[in-house]
Amino acid sequence: MNTAVTLIEVSPRDGFQSVVPIIPVADKVAIIRALSDAGLKHIEVGAFVHPKAIPQMADINQLLVELRKDTDCINNFESIVLVPNQRGTELAAQRHCQRVNFVFSVSEAHNLKNVRKSIDQSLHELRAVQQVVEQNPQMQLRVSLATSFDCPFAGAVDQQRCLEVLAQVCDICPDAQIALCDTTGKAHPFAVERLFSAAFEQLAGSHPVIFHCHDTYGMAIANVAAAYRAGVRFFDTAVAGFGGCPFAPGASGNVATEDVVYFFESAGICTGIDTNKLAVAIKLAEQIEGAQLGGSIRLLNNQ
Amino acid sequence: MNTAVTLIEVSPRDGFQSVVPIIPVADKVAIIRALSDAGLKHIEVGAFVHPKAIPQMADINQLLVELRKDTDCINNFESIVLVPNQRGTELAAQRHCQRVNFVFSVSEAHNLKNVRKSIDQSLHELRAVQQVVEQNPQMQLRVSLATSFDCPFAGAVDQQRCLEVLAQVCDICPDAQIALCDTTGKAHPFAVERLFSAAFEQLAGSHPVIFHCHDTYGMAIANVAAAYRAGVRFFDTAVAGFGGCPFAPGASGNVATEDVVYFFESAGICTGIDTNKLAVAIKLAEQIEGAQLGGSIRLLNNQ
Repeated sequence: MNTAVTLIEVSPRDGFQSVVPIIPVADKVAIIRALSDAGLKHIEVGAFVHPKAIPQMADINQLLVELRKDTDCINNFESIVLVPNQRGTELAAQRHCQRVNFVFSVSEAHNLKNVRKSIDQSLHELRAVQQVVEQNPQMQLRVSLATSFDCPFAGAVDQQRCLEVLAQVCDICPDAQIALCDTTGKAHPFAVERLFSAAFEQLAGSHPVIFHCHDTYGMAIANVAAAYRAGVRFFDTAVAGFGGCPFAPGASGNVATEDVVYFFESAGICTGIDTNKLAVAIKLAEQIEGAQLGGSIRLLNNQ
Repeated sequence: MNTAVTLIEVSPRDGFQSVVPIIPVADKVAIIRALSDAGLKHIEVGAFVHPKAIPQMADINQLLVELRKDTDCINNFESIVLVPNQRGTELAAQRHCQRVNFVFSVSEAHNLKNVRKSIDQSLHELRAVQQVVEQNPQMQLRVSLATSFDCPFAGAVDQQRCLEVLAQVCDICPDAQIALCDTTGKAHPFAVERLFSAAFEQLAGSHPVIFHCHDTYGMAIANVAAAYRAGVRFFDTAVAGFGGCPFAPGASGNVATEDVVYFFESAGICTGIDTNKLAVAIKLAEQIEGAQLGGSIRLLNNQ
């Protein structure tokens, strides 16, 4: 069993998207650079979504231009961009993005609210996204299954339903990373271990699996522990516990990068993150106007 | 496997003791009554310690008198008092207390700082306490092993050392409850599961086992989950995440009662607590001057 884990930093997308005041591109670049300096090798930097849907992501082209001016920095991490559809994927390909993250929900009710599509329509869109990815061999795909555990509109999500959607996604995308997402933060550690154990059995090693979780109900670290027990080695995290989901009422705060680093490193499990350098990114996060932050380790260090 | 759990409310002792402004007895009675109303059947109400050591506990006699005026309330829960020595145990017996909680540390360094005794001296004191308990058949004993995982002065505590002290305690006190305490909040879920599994194997059912933990590093719920996995069914908790240890620098906040209730109930594990009535106790906790509070569910409900 490999005891090292890989953290995927999502604050510049999942974190920033719920901040109302538009964050200057220079501030975004500064925090992304600090995160890279701290050792984060995978950073979701933004999204190719309609600016009216998520105004905070409207600067993605400018952001990519600015990030690429510092080649030492940009070459140090894999930059990920969220794409909602084929068109976004084409734009990401034109901008030479390394990985696109296509997100849809296991819960029909949440998918209709969040991306205004049925699950069948999202799977159809995923086929088109997969085609664009295949036409651009430099670009890779990640598929994120939102509400894999709980839906803000329909409640607990049936594990079998999640596994069925997972199987359909894997059929369409033989080479994608797959993230199972606790969008609302209501997943219970017992359910997290159960679902990931079942998913690993079903996948039989075919796809890398990521756990994306929120700390809304204070259970994120317990859920990270449960996912790790089940075999998960890739975790989405956000510095300073940034974030939330604008379409999931009550959901706030991705699990904090520094809390996950503390959790793993204190058990001797390597994350590759330099906590002193991560503190620089935390300070920058704390200076962002309108940021809703969380996490435990950050507050302790501020005492 | 019995899936129900029992929570032991410790806020009126472990929580209040770190509050500097003296809390009026009437306010203590009100919160204890609200906790009892919410369904908490075991409440640590105070301590027979020297008033100069912990001024907040100086009102224990008056508090017991006031609590007993409401017989409907006092008969609904087991009242526990902390005792540091034989003398405190005798005082508790004179005041007809139901259970005394004798605390000392597995770490020699912490025990010397906290109770100014070596571990051998504390074990000697425990024999005297046990004698007083035997002479007062209406009174029962609990022994709490502080710093069972980590010491603020000496770092990580060796599991074998903890098990040795546990064995000595069990020899002295054949009928006591035993609490293993994460005093600093630095215990890791993997270590928690390992220690409790080993302790259960060693005890072979001889003594009930309690987990006492703090959320200082955001790992309390993960640790509660780990202890539950190992078989623990008794948990110390404090409403609103009240508390800390005045002699353990950096340690703050017992795990919040409402967070533990949420954790268990959302997995269908019965706690016997009425969350609507617990909200009354949370409101009272929030009104206490100088209170340092924590927890996740409370903040969510305040949104």
